[in-house]
Amino acid sequence: MTTFTFRRQLTVEWGQCDPAGVVFNSRYFEMFDVSTWMLFEAALGVAAHQLASTFDIVGVPLVDARANFLKPAKFGDVIEVASRVAEFRRSSFDVEHRITIAGELAVDGGESRVWAARSKDDLEKIGAVPIPAEVIAKFG
Amino acid sequence: MTTFTFRRQLTVEWGQCDPAGVVFNSRYFEMFDVSTWMLFEAALGVAAHQLASTFDIVGVPLVDARANFLKPAKFGDVIEVASRVAEFRRSSFDVEHRITIAGELAVDGGESRVWAARSKDDLEKIGAVPIPAEVIAKFG
Amino acid sequence: MTTFTFRRQLTVEWGQCDPAGVVFNSRYFEMFDVSTWMLFEAALGVAAHQLASTFDIVGVPLVDARANFLKPAKFGDVIEVASRVAEFRRSSFDVEHRITIAGELAVDGGESRVWAARSKDDLEKIGAVPIPAEVIAKFG
Amino acid sequence: MTTFTFRRQLTVEWGQCDPAGVVFNSRYFEMFDVSTWMLFEAALGVAAHQLASTFDIVGVPLVDARANFLKPAKFGDVIEVASRVAEFRRSSFDVEHRITIAGELAVDGGESRVWAARSKDDLEKIGAVPIPAEVIAKFG
Repeated sequence: MTTFTFRRQLTVEWGQCDPAGVVFNSRYFEMFDVSTWMLFEAALGVAAHQLASTFDIVGVPLVDARANFLKPAKFGDVIEVASRVAEFRRSSFDVEHRITIAGELAVDGGESRVWAARSKDDLEKIGAVPIPAEVIAKFG
Repeated sequence: MTTFTFRRQLTVEWGQCDPAGVVFNSRYFEMFDVSTWMLFEAALGVAAHQLASTFDIVGVPLVDARANFLKPAKFGDVIEVASRVAEFRRSSFDVEHRITIAGELAVDGGESRVWAARSKDDLEKIGAVPIPAEVIAKFG
Repeated sequence: MTTFTFRRQLTVEWGQCDPAGVVFNSRYFEMFDVSTWMLFEAALGVAAHQLASTFDIVGVPLVDARANFLKPAKFGDVIEVASRVAEFRRSSFDVEHRITIAGELAVDGGESRVWAARSKDDLEKIGAVPIPAEVIAKFG
Repeated sequence: MTTFTFRRQLTVEWGQCDPAGVVFNSRYFEMFDVSTWMLFEAALGVAAHQLASTFDIVGVPLVDARANFLKPAKFGDVIEVASRVAEFRRSSFDVEHRITIAGELAVDGGESRVWAARSKDDLEKIGAVPIPAEVIAKFG
């Protein structure tokens, strides 16, 4: 488990909620995606949209996403999304996203992503490549 | 006004509705976009994702969108989206989208788009180019 | 594992795709939600928006969602979503959603939901209640 | 034209962009909706989700939305949304939303909404009611 945690606060929007008056599930996965970009930006000091060019990768494509919904969030609720890398492997990593409302865990989510680059031999091919040690080091 | 009209029926989804239990406005603009692609596919006999390569354009970017909401659509409502090109100009066109519920007009929408291609002199530049006469002819 | 499977085909929309040209992950969770409603509608013969009133429940709230992304789906791809209930428990159930492109598995997803009703003693309280045997029977 | 203007800055998210790498049009209408809520919250000093109960209305339903797209916004672009009420009428009003990128106008949008309440004679009926003078006064 790395120690660098990125936190942001959001106020639940009307358009993020469904007829039950609570955040529709797909919206949480949008939040996770944004938070992962912001976590990397904060840890590495590289703007999210420059991550690919800076590290000579195509991106960090998602291979798995999951969420456990414990408590609904309603229109106007202030929620906190706390994100950190749970584990770095050779060329992939897991991000943990915990959403709380007034300190209580509401959504316990996670993503698995790969550090992906174009093959030098075949530019059509995209595959996982080793994550640089200096990248991992920045997450503590 | 061209005569070729593309119609499709949709059942309103739970996740398209807001806490008032009705379709959230941005969802109608998603429907318009899909219907424009389908209208062109139906009129031209070219799959939407092959439109750009077939006509040597980058696409038909949206320059204006608008909707008048007359009647809310609720979860489970069956709606019909009827779309046609209201007007073709030299290098731009207007699409009209009318959404009805049981025959009653619910949303009266429209889009303006341009027929856009890369400049042959400067590939970084994208601009409006004349719409081929054979394209316009297919819309009746 | 129940045997009743609900299948639907979709053509990937422009607006469902991200700058990498592939379906953005949250869109799959929207598809899962719709497919679960349609699966219940098909199995029970009750329109999705009448499920709650028919069975005297508030709905089937999602408590867990997950997806494994194996193969990206691009704009224009025809995908099939096949959904069935993997397991019914006393008052909750798991739905399995498998998305294929030309027969190849692209997304392997799942949801866990509860059969939820208002407490008769305290209308403010919502909780899991037993799933009727005749409901379960309809899924084979 | 009222003078009270609400401004907020956003960084364009990956998931808000389409395969052309620019913000997909429906996302702007999501931004407009949020900005209208925030404008009212800022002008009136009432949290958005308490607007309805505070003023004894059901909300401010949208009757018209429109946007003119002048310049695309890309992933990572910092955009500013500036919103104000262009005109208050007896029971409806127009909101103007101007999105700029580095000071240049990118999207020129607008919404028309009504101040809507339940009829005291028939709770099933919702209709436009006069906007209180003290509400209008707060917008300058």
